[in-house]
Amino acid sequence: MGGSLFGRQLQLMTFGESHGPAMGGVLDGIPAGIPVDYELLRCEMNRRKPGEKSFESGRREHDEVEILSGVLEGITLGTPVAFIIRNEDHKPADYHDLKRVYRPGHADYTWDRKFGFRDYRGGGRASARETTARVVAGAFAKMVLLKYDALVYGFTNQIGTAAMEDDYNFQVHKIEASALRCPDNNVEKEMQAVIDQAVKEGDSVGGMVTCVVKNFPAGVGEPVFQKLESVVAQAVMSIPAVKGFEIGRGFQVATMNGSENNDPYINEDGKIRPASNNAGGVIGGISSGEDIVIRAAIKPVSSISLQQTTVDADGFPVKLNVEGRHDACVVPRAVTIVESMVSLALADLILQQEINKRFQE
Amino acid sequence: MGGSLFGRQLQLMTFGESHGPAMGGVLDGIPAGIPVDYELLRCEMNRRKPGEKSFESGRREHDEVEILSGVLEGITLGTPVAFIIRNEDHKPADYHDLKRVYRPGHADYTWDRKFGFRDYRGGGRASARETTARVVAGAFAKMVLLKYDALVYGFTNQIGTAAMEDDYNFQVHKIEASALRCPDNNVEKEMQAVIDQAVKEGDSVGGMVTCVVKNFPAGVGEPVFQKLESVVAQAVMSIPAVKGFEIGRGFQVATMNGSENNDPYINEDGKIRPASNNAGGVIGGISSGEDIVIRAAIKPVSSISLQQTTVDADGFPVKLNVEGRHDACVVPRAVTIVESMVSLALADLILQQEINKRFQE
Amino acid sequence: MGGSLFGRQLQLMTFGESHGPAMGGVLDGIPAGIPVDYELLRCEMNRRKPGEKSFESGRREHDEVEILSGVLEGITLGTPVAFIIRNEDHKPADYHDLKRVYRPGHADYTWDRKFGFRDYRGGGRASARETTARVVAGAFAKMVLLKYDALVYGFTNQIGTAAMEDDYNFQVHKIEASALRCPDNNVEKEMQAVIDQAVKEGDSVGGMVTCVVKNFPAGVGEPVFQKLESVVAQAVMSIPAVKGFEIGRGFQVATMNGSENNDPYINEDGKIRPASNNAGGVIGGISSGEDIVIRAAIKPVSSISLQQTTVDADGFPVKLNVEGRHDACVVPRAVTIVESMVSLALADLILQQEINKRFQE
Amino acid sequence: MGGSLFGRQLQLMTFGESHGPAMGGVLDGIPAGIPVDYELLRCEMNRRKPGEKSFESGRREHDEVEILSGVLEGITLGTPVAFIIRNEDHKPADYHDLKRVYRPGHADYTWDRKFGFRDYRGGGRASARETTARVVAGAFAKMVLLKYDALVYGFTNQIGTAAMEDDYNFQVHKIEASALRCPDNNVEKEMQAVIDQAVKEGDSVGGMVTCVVKNFPAGVGEPVFQKLESVVAQAVMSIPAVKGFEIGRGFQVATMNGSENNDPYINEDGKIRPASNNAGGVIGGISSGEDIVIRAAIKPVSSISLQQTTVDADGFPVKLNVEGRHDACVVPRAVTIVESMVSLALADLILQQEINKRFQE
Repeated sequence: MGGSLFGRQLQLMTFGESHGPAMGGVLDGIPAGIPVDYELLRCEMNRRKPGEKSFESGRREHDEVEILSGVLEGITLGTPVAFIIRNEDHKPADYHDLKRVYRPGHADYTWDRKFGFRDYRGGGRASARETTARVVAGAFAKMVLLKYDALVYGFTNQIGTAAMEDDYNFQVHKIEASALRCPDNNVEKEMQAVIDQAVKEGDSVGGMVTCVVKNFPAGVGEPVFQKLESVVAQAVMSIPAVKGFEIGRGFQVATMNGSENNDPYINEDGKIRPASNNAGGVIGGISSGEDIVIRAAIKPVSSISLQQTTVDADGFPVKLNVEGRHDACVVPRAVTIVESMVSLALADLILQQEINKRFQE
Repeated sequence: MGGSLFGRQLQLMTFGESHGPAMGGVLDGIPAGIPVDYELLRCEMNRRKPGEKSFESGRREHDEVEILSGVLEGITLGTPVAFIIRNEDHKPADYHDLKRVYRPGHADYTWDRKFGFRDYRGGGRASARETTARVVAGAFAKMVLLKYDALVYGFTNQIGTAAMEDDYNFQVHKIEASALRCPDNNVEKEMQAVIDQAVKEGDSVGGMVTCVVKNFPAGVGEPVFQKLESVVAQAVMSIPAVKGFEIGRGFQVATMNGSENNDPYINEDGKIRPASNNAGGVIGGISSGEDIVIRAAIKPVSSISLQQTTVDADGFPVKLNVEGRHDACVVPRAVTIVESMVSLALADLILQQEINKRFQE
Repeated sequence: MGGSLFGRQLQLMTFGESHGPAMGGVLDGIPAGIPVDYELLRCEMNRRKPGEKSFESGRREHDEVEILSGVLEGITLGTPVAFIIRNEDHKPADYHDLKRVYRPGHADYTWDRKFGFRDYRGGGRASARETTARVVAGAFAKMVLLKYDALVYGFTNQIGTAAMEDDYNFQVHKIEASALRCPDNNVEKEMQAVIDQAVKEGDSVGGMVTCVVKNFPAGVGEPVFQKLESVVAQAVMSIPAVKGFEIGRGFQVATMNGSENNDPYINEDGKIRPASNNAGGVIGGISSGEDIVIRAAIKPVSSISLQQTTVDADGFPVKLNVEGRHDACVVPRAVTIVESMVSLALADLILQQEINKRFQE
Repeated sequence: MGGSLFGRQLQLMTFGESHGPAMGGVLDGIPAGIPVDYELLRCEMNRRKPGEKSFESGRREHDEVEILSGVLEGITLGTPVAFIIRNEDHKPADYHDLKRVYRPGHADYTWDRKFGFRDYRGGGRASARETTARVVAGAFAKMVLLKYDALVYGFTNQIGTAAMEDDYNFQVHKIEASALRCPDNNVEKEMQAVIDQAVKEGDSVGGMVTCVVKNFPAGVGEPVFQKLESVVAQAVMSIPAVKGFEIGRGFQVATMNGSENNDPYINEDGKIRPASNNAGGVIGGISSGEDIVIRAAIKPVSSISLQQTTVDADGFPVKLNVEGRHDACVVPRAVTIVESMVSLALADLILQQEINKRFQE
């Protein structure tokens, strides 16, 4: 059955090994008549790209997106939008020594158990390079959401112990003004110190991403198994390195009382809405019209410079010195990927709701 | 498209409003030849049922499960297993006053926004009674998993501030010996005190459930969008009241270094395995053969005795005194439902892996 | 994966063995706000039922449909509509002698090869009784189509060599006025003679069903693999005993020229439409707004009174005298089932098109 | 929801407009460890290609297939196999005059009704060039089937009134030895005369394709809605120009008696099998182990040289002289496409059956 298909109404099938000819995807179910915002697409690809910063991988990715179908004269046709991104920079030789080594934290061992063999060249399909296709498709999903005036943005709210207060009401432009995608300058400085320390020690650090959706309409999400939070959780938990997901107060609810956590309804100038938003924009799996707020935990990068001990496919002990180019912290780049997956999940659900709307007219 | 279908290989479609004639489901894709363990089924249904304890709803549910198809002489036929549970105890009159009230924390308002109208009788399909069908299907999923010797069990690891240490290596029978499904007697006492306090105040409390899967084979989970943790997250986040999900170290990874978090491989008597299990049994979305460990955050019950202020469908303010029968804490009952959804997700994935196994022989 | 799920937007999952407790289904994705036409439902069930006629099985089926969910006060809720029909008349003893016999034309042998064992009681899930669930769901699909003013009707256009001219522009009420569902009185008499002859010889006869959809809107059907004719073909070919499917001119196109077969467009009082309808209402997989016309070939019933020679599961020769109650010709009853499946397929596609419509406004 | 996804276990998503940059597809769920037969792939692509014969379109398609993922060192990885075929020969100018004309028999009008606008350049996604992706994926499906020793082949059994006897037991190599893919030399000559006549008249002709599958294992196909014939029918009816489908005796069953049509079982040297194969290799939707035999009706090509009268998008009458390059008969080329779709459908079902097999061991 494979696992490279996402979505029900808006369906994305992706493909590509990190050191094969190309990464890419096909997005089916995107309505006809949507103008393609190439500027947004380019911008999203740049946001995902590893940069020149000291804590990031030196791999230079040009990541030209070629759109192969589904668009005519800048407008979507209603047919599948296919796209590819060539892998320019592959040096499989870099990886030859790792052909039979089970790198800690990587999927080498589990893929061998699953498929009997695997693409040993830099992770193959298990490489984080797989996420390029998510970002391209996510940009198209954002174009769909913009038709509804819904705006998706994410930021780095924690790296190591450096964490922002639980608040997301800052000016959005501050996110991209920050190298770490942290809108709070003071916290950003602490985060940078955490990363610098990790780099010095040849180690890596984890963190957390918050993603907010503003102006998302009420009534979206399908009861029982396709609840909004359930679909978004699947989307976000499918991102490499994500180990936890929460919506609204998330794990804080464990220590809350009902009287605290419940969001009572009020009448605000004739419009009914919840007075508070502990729920994070969703009640009973269906959007309430309030901001959707989710968070994702990102594990520290598995590839570190520190020597590690592990075994190879024959069970012989190996001392592993990962020499290549590796990020000490991927959280700022993960922001873009989290946004992409949240956008794909929500665009899928928002289109599904059209049918219910039609029958109420 | 609805949202009442779960799974890809093992597909469950559920139905039922809390105050309609019956709840139920149809489970398609279950292989032929599996003996039906009726004792397990009865046991699971009893575990989900509200009891007589002071903190639980007084609603008496007999919950006789009638199996309508798919089983002949105690063995599955390979055809869909359909089942229903009649709703015996419905008194819609109890709910008539609430017909137009938007209860805080409940889905009344969002369902109105989605469908234009809703079943006002006790939550309809948004009622927690919907989970009966999950538990029946979950019992069948456990029967599938038992064919592989995989064992799924959950427990209450936190209620309010009363929390267990992060350890799950106790004797499993201690869980069911505890009224709160907490295997640690001391913590259980603290939990009971938290609940008693909430009952006294007319309030409710949240908590956390841990679920562990032992003996789960390596190689299960599908790359990219159907990663094991992604599918299980969707399953668990679809349970009413769940607001957070994590696997392995979960949100702790935000403050960890790679050298700490990585699980290096060792050769244990000729068998390769990770030396530690921070990953919670899954690497790159595929099971490693180690214990799968997940946690879910459960919000405090929305229905509380304390008076609340809200509005009705016309926007008029309402003082809400929920008189009926309500739990102060559902975490112990949620254990069964979390186990059911984890079992359904894993049975689905384990069957998908058969095809890969066959091609490696 | 099972095979009991039909549809993408409007999804039906059915269940039931002919001699188990009940047949039934769950229909998810049906929009909220559709009034349930119980009279239509009863009428459809009666049309499928075996009657008292000489050529039909003596099995008396009351076929009370119980709706278990998804409807409140006569209106669909937008949640799954579940229904069951109890199997009242089962006498498994009738079938005990057949437990190990491979009846010619029946699925006994192939089910054994597939599942390793099977429900030997009258065909189990392979029994034509399975179609009750299709008819109930089909009635709901007709209610959806009526919202668009689309009308589905079928008729018997051939039994044995007695065949109607290729024309469907008669008065619709003539169909149900005919015991054989043939609107042409003269042909009906010939058909009856064919059946009488078969009954006399202890044999059975095949035939053909035509199904027409009037007022179906243009623009419905999805390109490439979900073409209207492709989805309807799957639906109709899934009916037991159907061996062929055609749309428009069907197999006649093999001997036609393009200049004959092409339907040129005209401007009729300001409305563009094809001047002819050789295509049967669909061009390039998308409806043209003209009548949809399909035909299905129905094989002669496999159970006949004539003695047959076959083998049992051990390969021993068996002389088979099917004593029970069997139809000599099921074509008139198949009309209802073909209509049901056509309705389900078209309702599924018509709802999918809502999303495209919305984006063009 | 789009319509460009085919299959459940083996899932194909295709894309591409005839005059856009490329056609292509992604095939997910193909097991790891299958050697890629590039020779077969090339051969299949050549068989689909328009040639130099007088009755065929002059369009020269090189149709180099580039495989972008899913294969390492000539072996499938278990990850999606993506492929593209560049569109080399596009001259959109050829089609500019047709931008607003509704060509008879083409999908111009219905696509406008569906999407509000369309790719006017030679049919866009409704062009028969779309089938290139089916043929590439079909070649991979044939590689899967070869693992089971199943062999798929098709032939032209009718063009216009020139038709073969209903027999398929000839030497298979005779098919490809024939320019028209008709293994009977005498009939082939008649067919050629039919085509020559059509070319002379500036017209086109229809025909019929038979497809046979030998050595297909018993037990494949899923009950009720995913019956083998139902899935194959959907696959074949999704091919452009196909207007009818039948299996086994097909429409002949309408005039047959049960005693004639039933295939009684025999014991042949200890192996149980049907004595005849009127059913075409499938009983109750599940394969019997006998040859699978299906037929498809192919309509005459819509583009003809003869002048036609139609209207444009504003309803103004247009005299249409299609000048370009057009086939007078596509039936021989359709053989390859029918084989491809049958192979995709059967590979999908054969993989699904693995799970049942495993549970019977």
